[in-house]
Parts: sequence; C-alpha cells; structure tokens
Amino acid sequence: QISIPSRSTVTNLRLKLPVACIILEVIIIILFGTLVQYDSDVDAKQWHKKINNGTSNYDNEFYYRYPSFQDVHVMIFIGFGFLMTFLQRYGFSSVGFNFLIAAFSLQWATLMQGFFHGMHGGKIHIGIESMINADFCTGAVLISFGAVLGKTSPVQLLVMAVIEVTLFSINEYVVLSVLEVSDAGGSMTIHTFGAYFGLMVTRVLYRPNLDKSQHKNCSVYNSDLFAMIGTIFLWMFWPSFNSAVTAHGDDQHRTAMNTYYSLAACTLATYGLSSVVAHDGKLDMVHIQNAALAGGVAVGTAGEMMLTPFGSMIVGFLAGTISVLGYKFLTPVLESKLKIQDTCGVHNLHGMPGVLGAIVGAITASVASMDVYGDGMDDVFPGIHSGQISASNQGVQQAISLAVTLGIALLGGLLTGFILKLPIYATPPDTICFEDSIYWEVPGEEDSHEELTHVRTAEEEEKINA
Amino acid sequence: QISIPSRSTVTNLRLKLPVACIILEVIIIILFGTLVQYDSDVDAKQWHKKINNGTSNYDNEFYYRYPSFQDVHVMIFIGFGFLMTFLQRYGFSSVGFNFLIAAFSLQWATLMQGFFHGMHGGKIHIGIESMINADFCTGAVLISFGAVLGKTSPVQLLVMAVIEVTLFSINEYVVLSVLEVSDAGGSMTIHTFGAYFGLMVTRVLYRPNLDKSQHKNCSVYNSDLFAMIGTIFLWMFWPSFNSAVTAHGDDQHRTAMNTYYSLAACTLATYGLSSVVAHDGKLDMVHIQNAALAGGVAVGTAGEMMLTPFGSMIVGFLAGTISVLGYKFLTPVLESKLKIQDTCGVHNLHGMPGVLGAIVGAITASVASMDVYGDGMDDVFPGIHSGQISASNQGVQQAISLAVTLGIALLGGLLTGFILKLPIYATPPDTICFEDSIYWEVPGEEDSHEELTHVRTAEEEEKINA
Amino acid sequence: QISIPSRSTVTNLRLKLPVACIILEVIIIILFGTLVQYDSDVDAKQWHKKINNGTSNYDNEFYYRYPSFQDVHVMIFIGFGFLMTFLQRYGFSSVGFNFLIAAFSLQWATLMQGFFHGMHGGKIHIGIESMINADFCTGAVLISFGAVLGKTSPVQLLVMAVIEVTLFSINEYVVLSVLEVSDAGGSMTIHTFGAYFGLMVTRVLYRPNLDKSQHKNCSVYNSDLFAMIGTIFLWMFWPSFNSAVTAHGDDQHRTAMNTYYSLAACTLATYGLSSVVAHDGKLDMVHIQNAALAGGVAVGTAGEMMLTPFGSMIVGFLAGTISVLGYKFLTPVLESKLKIQDTCGVHNLHGMPGVLGAIVGAITASVASMDVYGDGMDDVFPGIHSGQISASNQGVQQAISLAVTLGIALLGGLLTGFILKLPIYATPPDTICFEDSIYWEVPGEEDSHEELTHVRTAEEEEKINA
Repeated sequence: QISIPSRSTVTNLRLKLPVACIILEVIIIILFGTLVQYDSDVDAKQWHKKINNGTSNYDNEFYYRYPSFQDVHVMIFIGFGFLMTFLQRYGFSSVGFNFLIAAFSLQWATLMQGFFHGMHGGKIHIGIESMINADFCTGAVLISFGAVLGKTSPVQLLVMAVIEVTLFSINEYVVLSVLEVSDAGGSMTIHTFGAYFGLMVTRVLYRPNLDKSQHKNCSVYNSDLFAMIGTIFLWMFWPSFNSAVTAHGDDQHRTAMNTYYSLAACTLATYGLSSVVAHDGKLDMVHIQNAALAGGVAVGTAGEMMLTPFGSMIVGFLAGTISVLGYKFLTPVLESKLKIQDTCGVHNLHGMPGVLGAIVGAITASVASMDVYGDGMDDVFPGIHSGQISASNQGVQQAISLAVTLGIALLGGLLTGFILKLPIYATPPDTICFEDSIYWEVPGEEDSHEELTHVRTAEEEEKINA
Repeated sequence: QISIPSRSTVTNLRLKLPVACIILEVIIIILFGTLVQYDSDVDAKQWHKKINNGTSNYDNEFYYRYPSFQDVHVMIFIGFGFLMTFLQRYGFSSVGFNFLIAAFSLQWATLMQGFFHGMHGGKIHIGIESMINADFCTGAVLISFGAVLGKTSPVQLLVMAVIEVTLFSINEYVVLSVLEVSDAGGSMTIHTFGAYFGLMVTRVLYRPNLDKSQHKNCSVYNSDLFAMIGTIFLWMFWPSFNSAVTAHGDDQHRTAMNTYYSLAACTLATYGLSSVVAHDGKLDMVHIQNAALAGGVAVGTAGEMMLTPFGSMIVGFLAGTISVLGYKFLTPVLESKLKIQDTCGVHNLHGMPGVLGAIVGAITASVASMDVYGDGMDDVFPGIHSGQISASNQGVQQAISLAVTLGIALLGGLLTGFILKLPIYATPPDTICFEDSIYWEVPGEEDSHEELTHVRTAEEEEKINA
Repeated sequence: QISIPSRSTVTNLRLKLPVACIILEVIIIILFGTLVQYDSDVDAKQWHKKINNGTSNYDNEFYYRYPSFQDVHVMIFIGFGFLMTFLQRYGFSSVGFNFLIAAFSLQWATLMQGFFHGMHGGKIHIGIESMINADFCTGAVLISFGAVLGKTSPVQLLVMAVIEVTLFSINEYVVLSVLEVSDAGGSMTIHTFGAYFGLMVTRVLYRPNLDKSQHKNCSVYNSDLFAMIGTIFLWMFWPSFNSAVTAHGDDQHRTAMNTYYSLAACTLATYGLSSVVAHDGKLDMVHIQNAALAGGVAVGTAGEMMLTPFGSMIVGFLAGTISVLGYKFLTPVLESKLKIQDTCGVHNLHGMPGVLGAIVGAITASVASMDVYGDGMDDVFPGIHSGQISASNQGVQQAISLAVTLGIALLGGLLTGFILKLPIYATPPDTICFEDSIYWEVPGEEDSHEELTHVRTAEEEEKINA
C-alpha cells in the first residue's frame, strides 16, 4: 500500500477531531442525564397506567410513526450520504462525514428542540415524534453540508452543526409555535433554512483559488451510480418524510399521496428540461440526481393540505423545471458573480423549491374553507377551525414565516461562516479540496495494477498451488 | 473532459424527449384535474365524518398498507433499476430510464386502472391501494423494459409504456373483475403479462446485426455488484409485494410468509443448479441475480391461498430450477431460432415462473374447501364462499385467465413492436447499443488516468501548498 | 472474455455444491411438510374464528411486527452482505455466499427453533415472530461467516450453518426458556454466540501460510463504498432489530429509542478514537464500517429495559471505544499470538460489544424495581413481577447466561472447526484466498482495456454508422 510519506500538519486531525467528538459527546451525555426523560408512550410505568385505564397497545404513537421514522432515517443516512458521493474522490468523506454530523446532530437536536418545545416540568420528554423531528433538523444540517462539500474539515462541520441545529430550533419554534404556521414537511423550516444557511456559509468561506482543485470537482462513472442510490432512496421515501409528523389518519394518508404525485410529475419535467438544456440533447446526471427530487421539497408545506393530486403535480412540475434551469443557468452566475461556491447545487434542489413550497403553502392556506376540510380543518389549521384566525390571515402568517426563516438562515449562516474561518479546524488548502486522502486512509492504488495483471497472477498462483 | 465532437442526429433527443415528457405530463395533469379525487380515507372532510361516526384512526387504510407500499416502491425504483445495471456501460440508462418510465407509468396507471375499476360517479377515487396498484402496473412495464434493455431510446420506452399500461389495465379488468380470479401478487397480470408483452416487442424489433454491440452486452466486476443491490432488494421485499393488496389480517400475514419460504427454497435451488450447469462448476452471477427471484414470481397467485409453507417451498424450488435451466439452455435458442433478443432474460425470471405461478394458482384454487379456509374463504374466493362457483370451476377460471393474459400480452406486444419500429424515436444503431454515452453526458475517462497518477499529483499539490 | 483454462479440481464445486444445496433443501421441504403449520394469526380458518369472536384485524401480530421484520431482513441480506464486500476481489462471494447461507439458515432455523420452543401438539406453529427469530438466528451464522470470510468454500459454509443453527437454538432455549433471561436484541444469543463460535472455527482452520493471499486481503476505493451500504443499513435498522420481538407498546418503543441513542453516541466515539489511533490522524474505513455499529450490539440485552437514553449513550460510547481499540491493538495480537485469523474483526464488532451488552443487561436487570417499571415489569421481567425471583437474582441469571453462551459457542465452534477441516469441501488453497474467481464466473478484464479505449471506439462506431 502506497502511503503519502509526509503530510502537512495543517490538515492533521489527530487531536482536533477526537477532542471535538469526545467533548461534544460528553456534554450531550451529561445534558441527557440531567434533562431527558421517556415520554408516556415510552416509559414502562406510565404506559402501563394508560393500558390499565383502557388504552390499547396499538394506540401507542410508535405504531403510527415508526415506519415513517425509519424511512426518514434512510433518507438522512443513505439518501443524503450517497447523493453526495458523486464526486470522484470524495466518496469516503461524503458518506462518512454525513454519517458523523448526522449522528451528532440528531442528539444535539433532541436537546435543542426539547428546550424550545418539549419541556414538561423542567424535563425534555422524548418519543418517536421527537426522534423524527431530530432527524428532520439533521436534514437541514446535511443540506448545508451539500453547499460546502469538499471544502471543509469534519471539525468545521461539527462546529457548523452545533450552531445550525441551535438556530434551526429557534426558527422552528418561531415559525411553528409563535406564528402557528403549518409546515409539516419543512419546505421552510428544513429546506429553505438549510439551503440559505449553507449558501451564506459557503459565501463567507469563498475560495478564489478553488479552481486549483477543479479537476477533482466532478464525477466518474461509478461515483454517479453510487449517487443514484442516494437519489432514488430520497425520492422513494419522500412521501414518508412529508407525512411523518402530520396528524393521524387522513393527514398522513393525504400528505404521502400528494408527495408521491408531485415527485412523479417533477421527474418527467426534469428529464424533459435536462434534455432541452444539456449539450447535444443528452441527459445530464446532475439534473437527474437532484432536480427530480425538487417535487418533494416543494410540497413540504402544502402536502398535508387539501392540495389535490392535480395541484401537487403542477407544483412538482414547476419545481423540477426551476431546479433544472437553476443548475444550468443560475449556479454558474452565483459562483462567478456572487462568489457562492455551491458544490451540490443546494440552491436548486432545496433553496428555490423550498421557497416555492412556502409560497404554495401560503396560497393553499389562504383558500382553506370548512366546506373543503370539514372537521379535518382542526388537524391542519387549528386556528382557522377554532375561529381564531381567518384563512387569508393564515396565508399571511405562512408568508411571514418564509421571511423569518430566510432572515434567520442568512444571518445565522453569516455568523457561522465567520466562526468557521478561524484557522483552527484543519481546513483543506485550495489545492486539495474534493479529496478523501487528506482525512482518510485511502486504500493503495495498486488495485489498478492488480486488475490489469490479475489474470496472469491467478494462473501463476494456480501453478504454484498445483 | 473528453467529449465526442460530432454526434449523428439520429439519436439526438433534444426535441423528441422533451416533447414526449412534457406533452404526456400535461395530458396527465389535465386528466387528473378533471377526473381524480381523494377517496374517503384521504379526504379531510369525509374521513372526519367517519371519525365522528366512531371509526378509529388506525382503521385508516393507510396503516394497513403503507409499509407494504413503500417496500413495493423500493422494488420498482431500486430493485428493477439496479438489477438492470449489470451491463458494463449502461448503468446510467438502466437506473435512469427505469426511473423515468416508472415515474410516468405510475401516473398513467392511476388513470387507466381508475377508468376500469375505480370510477365512482364519474370520478376516479384514489388512495393507498390505488397507489400500490399503480406501482404494480409499473412493474409490468419495467419487466418489458428488461427484454428490450440497451436497444431502445427513452422516447420508445415512453411510447411503449403508454400502450402497455393501457392494455395491462384492460387485461387486469378482464381477469380480476370479469373472470373474478384471484391473483394478488400478479403472477399472471404482472409477470406473465409484462414478460410476454416485452418478448413480443423485442421480437418485432429484432436486430440481425446486434452482434456489433456484443462486446458491450456483458458485465464488469462493479456492475455486477450494483446489480446485486437490485436483486437483494427485490428478494427481500417480495413478501410485501405479494401481500400488499391482499385482505387484512391472515391474508396479508399468510401471503408474506408463503413468499418468504418460496424465495428461500428458490435460492437454494438456484445455487445448486447454477453450479451444475455453469462452466467448470462455477457459479454464474446471471443466475444468482435473476433466478433466485423466480420463487417470488411463482407464488404471486397462490401466495394468499392456503398453500402452506411446504407447498410454497416446492413451488419456489421448481421456479428456481426452471429459471436457471432457462438461462442456460432456452435463452440461446430463443435468440438463434426465434429471433427473440431478451437482454435481461425476462422469459426466465418472469415469463416461465409467471406461467408456473398461474398454474399453481389454478390447482390450489381448485382444491379450496371450507374445511380448510373457514370463513376466511370470503377473503380469498368470495365466489366459492357465497356458493356462486365451485372450487373446481374457480380453478378453470384461473386457467382461462392465464390464456387471456397471454393472448392480450402477445397481441399487444406485436402491435407495440410495430409502432416502435417507426423511425422517429432516436433509436440507437446496431453498433452503439448497450451504451450510455449515446443519451447521457458521461463523465470523461481521465479518471483512469487520474487514478493511476493520483498519488504523485497529491504530493505535488502538497508541495505547491507548502 | 478471458477464461482461466485449467482449474485445479480441488476447488471445483460442480458436484459438491449442488449436492449440498439440493439434499439440504429436500430434507427441509420434507420436514416442513411433516411438521410445520401456520399459527392462528396466519391460518385462514383459525383467524376468522377469532374475528368472529370480536378480534379486530389490526390485532393480528402481522401489523405489530412486519415493518420490524422487513428492517431485520434488510440487515441480514443487504447489511451483512454488503458490509463484507470491502475486500477488493471478494464482492461476489461476500454478498453471494451471504445470500446463500442466509436463505438456507432461515429455513433450518425455523425448524430448529420450532423444535425447541414452538411445538404445539407435535407441530411447529409459525408466524411473523418465528420469521423474525429465524432471521435472528441467521444473523449469528453470518457473524461467524465474517470470521472465516475469504477462506472457506460455500459447502463448508453450509455445513457450518447446519451445525451452528442447531447449537444456536439449543443455547437460545437454555438462555431464554430455562434460565428465563431477557435478551431481546441478542447481545448474548446472537452476537456473543456468533462471534465466539466463528472465532473458534477460524482458530481451528488456522492457515499458517495465509500471507500468500495477503495482497488480496484488503480493500479498494469502490469496495469500501459498497461496504458502507452495508454499514449504514445495519446502523439505521438496528433499532428495529433490537425491538422486533419485544412486547407490544412501550417495550418496542423504548427499545428502538435506546438503540437509536446508543448508536449515535457510539458513532461519535468511533470517529474520535479512529482519528486518535490511526496513522497520521486520518480516519480508517475499517473502524467506521464496523465500530460505529458496536452501539447496537451493546444494547441488545438492556435495550428493552428502563436503561434511559442517558444510560444507552454511555453504553454506546463505551462500545465504540473498545471496538476501535480492538481493531487497532487486539486483532493483530489475536492473529500473531492466538492464531485467530478474524477477517472482518467480528471479535471487535460482535464479540466484545456482545459481552459488554450482556454485562450491562445483568447490571440493569439487577436494579430493576416496581417503582420504575410499574406494571410494565411483567413484559420485561415476568419473574420479578410475579415475585418468583428477585431483581438481583435475575441479574445473576443474566450473567450465568453469558457464561453458558460462551461455553456452547466455543465448544460448538471447536467441534465445527474440526468437521470443516475434512478435505471434502472444495476449500480454497492458501494462495487463492479472498478471491472470487475460484468459485464464480468473473467477467473478463477487458473492461479496463475497454474503458481506456472507449472513446475512440465510440467515435469509430459513429463513423461506421454514418
């Protein structure tokens, strides 16, 4: 195995990463020990009190939500992780750092989201719903990761996660609890927030000499296939993502269905547009891997509403269209004019479709009527149902939430970017971005040699053996 | 990145694919807007009326079927998609065109199946069960795709899907609603139909000079591993496929179990037979990737019946056996004598095992008795339960359904083949079949170079940086 | 395609593998026909009797367990299968032999586990819970497979599976039914048993000249990415594994949650420790692929208890730590001093964390109190609830179970090792271990050539075509 003999200490993680991981984990464990308790569907004593009072086991929240939780979990770890393996020499980091920061973020999110909307008598109560919400918050961090992919050290990513999870929870609290807005699939709180936060971070971390690593900032044949694993799992399980925390019954059912049709329409739009804009009428893997998912993002707010499959498909079609056009025309401009180096194009997959989703949600909310929703109104818009707010005002609140989200994301990203600029994180130099070997023991290159000489070797060994 | 400078306009998709995608999607959206409505488990108002009348949320069909739906969804998009990536230079197309035609077909199937057995007062009512059925219909199209893999343009595939989904729905209506036959896992309606339809299409599209592309019509090491992702996901989730639309309770439970044991027995048969027939006693990846799945196909009809695990294992064992023998002995004959170029060997995986499944279903139905089924007879054979038909006549109906399915599939494939012969679809020439670069921007080949020179480059960059 | 002309008959499978597969399958089918019946949730007549007596369909065990079953199934076939593809030229065998012995073991386990704790009136009654238990038993066999990976023929593996499944079922019976111990996620019965059984087998099969194949006993870039698919699926679905057969309601909920947090903490520990111990501060894929999973193993016993998320995270953190340290410092010693060649390092992933899990379980059991568990005590420790045994004695029983498991595993492995030493299994010679081509038709190596010359060829073909 060929090893690179000397390695600049700039990027050496030996002390920095262990210190970051272990200190963070110890803090989390202490806080969990102090603050966190099982909720009444998880705690043995409390649940059995409910059982003794006539509740059935299938009333346990676990059975309503666990299959959705597992689908979301797959999206976070396989979906995001493999989607980012498209880079030719950054697969270990893509799936590996995704794994690390997701495992960290879901713990930290349990605490932060608990502080803001899960406290009961000084304790954070957790159950399957808080687990889903923790994975959701993690999703936002991974979206931001996509913007800075290949240009950041794992220590930077952990610091980013600490701040982003905190700000995410604050924004989520403002949007869902203060403004009392509907955003079950997180078009605003997850996608818009994660995208614009990440874009601002990468803007602050702008590298004028990144072209020195440009030859590695592209895919190879097998890396594109690995990325398709991520794409397809995200696409398939998005109906579960959007419906994971909606109300029981019709709400989960409707949200899953709206997302299913939105994504299908989005995929057709993506293939059509990709072929129009790409060189020589050929399809571009970047579009297929990413834009085909925009339909899931764009019904993240309105998916639980009475959007109808018809409405969902129109939204999906629009989302796929703007996403492909964004990859083709907007990303180069963002980089050259605004100095935003967005590795995965999260602006096209999460940013613009997230904003579209927020707008669709505001419009759909503003036309909600008891005539259409019946008593189901209470699940989707309890304020309208109780007469506290009119439908049009609910729409306004939804629009305000988008503005708040954008504001907190951009300011938070700005702050985070400057913190991440400190020269203490083992950041890669401009010349070795998008490269695994800087942080990973990468297996030797003899494999190419091995493959070429393999047959002869096998025969020889055969003889030796005979 | 090396790009091929000139490209014959014959295969240029710039206008054809966008036009096909966008026109089809616009038609679908208009038809959805006109015809499609949420069913009463999805609609907010209607479901809450049920709730007010004492229904519980866990009675919502969503909770009985959604986990199965997601497993089926994985089979359609990951299973079929990656199973076909075994070709060395057709991975983008395999997983990418699978994605495109599946996303189209599930929308079109919602409409077509709705026309034939989902109309209520002039509207198509949709819910989780229709979503599963739409995925099922999509499965048939993807089976046919396997027969023509590598030799067709995406525009041809979309046209094939339009026709096949329509004919599938008609056949399904005849078999399930007119002949009142049991076929929950689709041995007939999905596998037999999809296979013989596709075989007839590829027969009509026979290419006498396909040997010019023969060197690409094979696998490489990594492409075989990608294909195993597809195989294993299909294998694991087949119990969900067969049980997804069976009746609640014992029916879903029994179907999943029968499929589980059928597949396990099939796998042992496949390994045993592969080693017998293959060169030098070695195992052949083609058999493992495909024949091990035949056990799922072959209990697609009888899986919900009281087949017993014992019966299921015998069926699975037979299915694996005929499938391996088919790959070894029949496929070459089909190509040389009958001019059927069946890229994936769908005749061995879906055709023969589908027919076997239909026959097993007919026999099992013909011996059904109240003594064995009790009141469960009403779920599996309502006609026998109500006394409308005898068990032996039910068996006859099952056999007639197989004949009807074969007839519609073969005639439909013939018609479709001739339509696909028109010279307007950007079809690949004989010399460039099984090749992604004709329809995709394929990343440059410098990666090989890159890998070989990688270490030196990294060191150099290091020095530059230092 | 280049084929290796002569092949030593030593490793020829033509007769041995078919005979093994087919005889075993025929025996299984006969035993199933004689002994196995649907249980009352699967049988049409019996379930409908229950329905007629007022049971609801959602009371069917299927709905409580099927999603967990499918997750476990994915772990067994994709998780274990792909985790072991890390070897550069053993991917076909890793995923392929995993597939074969899992498909065999789950059938054999149904029978063996049925003999020991599923007999009713001379018949084995099976349902979704027995299917999960069969998959669990299969997991133990696959753990042992990891210890001998690359050095055994498929015939040896089948023979190992026959014996191991049998001994597993005996040990499980002793631990769960005689000693009445709690071990829902199998820290003892699955992980400790599978690991020490496999380690003893590989000890007996010690190959002093294995260094002749050493150049193949390592990974390449893409093989490490394939292995990450296995790792991540195992990691994500471990909460389902540990909770799959716990009691309904709070137990399943709590077990899933404890596992989730244990794994998250374990992952942080793994990254931290890997960076400390690895060369130059770089992360080592071996640690990430394996040690990050130890947190799931280590809460296999205590996960269903009132361990709290706080306790789970401490356990996970410890498990990740000892696992990384084991890979770094213990594995080389085991090989050089104790002559234990543990290909996948199952001692670090399953052995030590399994023992840790057993100890944690014993301690947690010994402090169980009605004050904490309430009536939920009956689900976790029915003996304590009914007053038959004190909590501290339950802890002692748990510890005794660990000793029993270790004893049966080591003795069983010893026996099995000697049986597998017989020269009748087409075992690979020392010089061609870790090599697919010995048992598989491996596609020709022209692909390297193909890739290098691909562009020119395409252009030429273009011209030919024009």
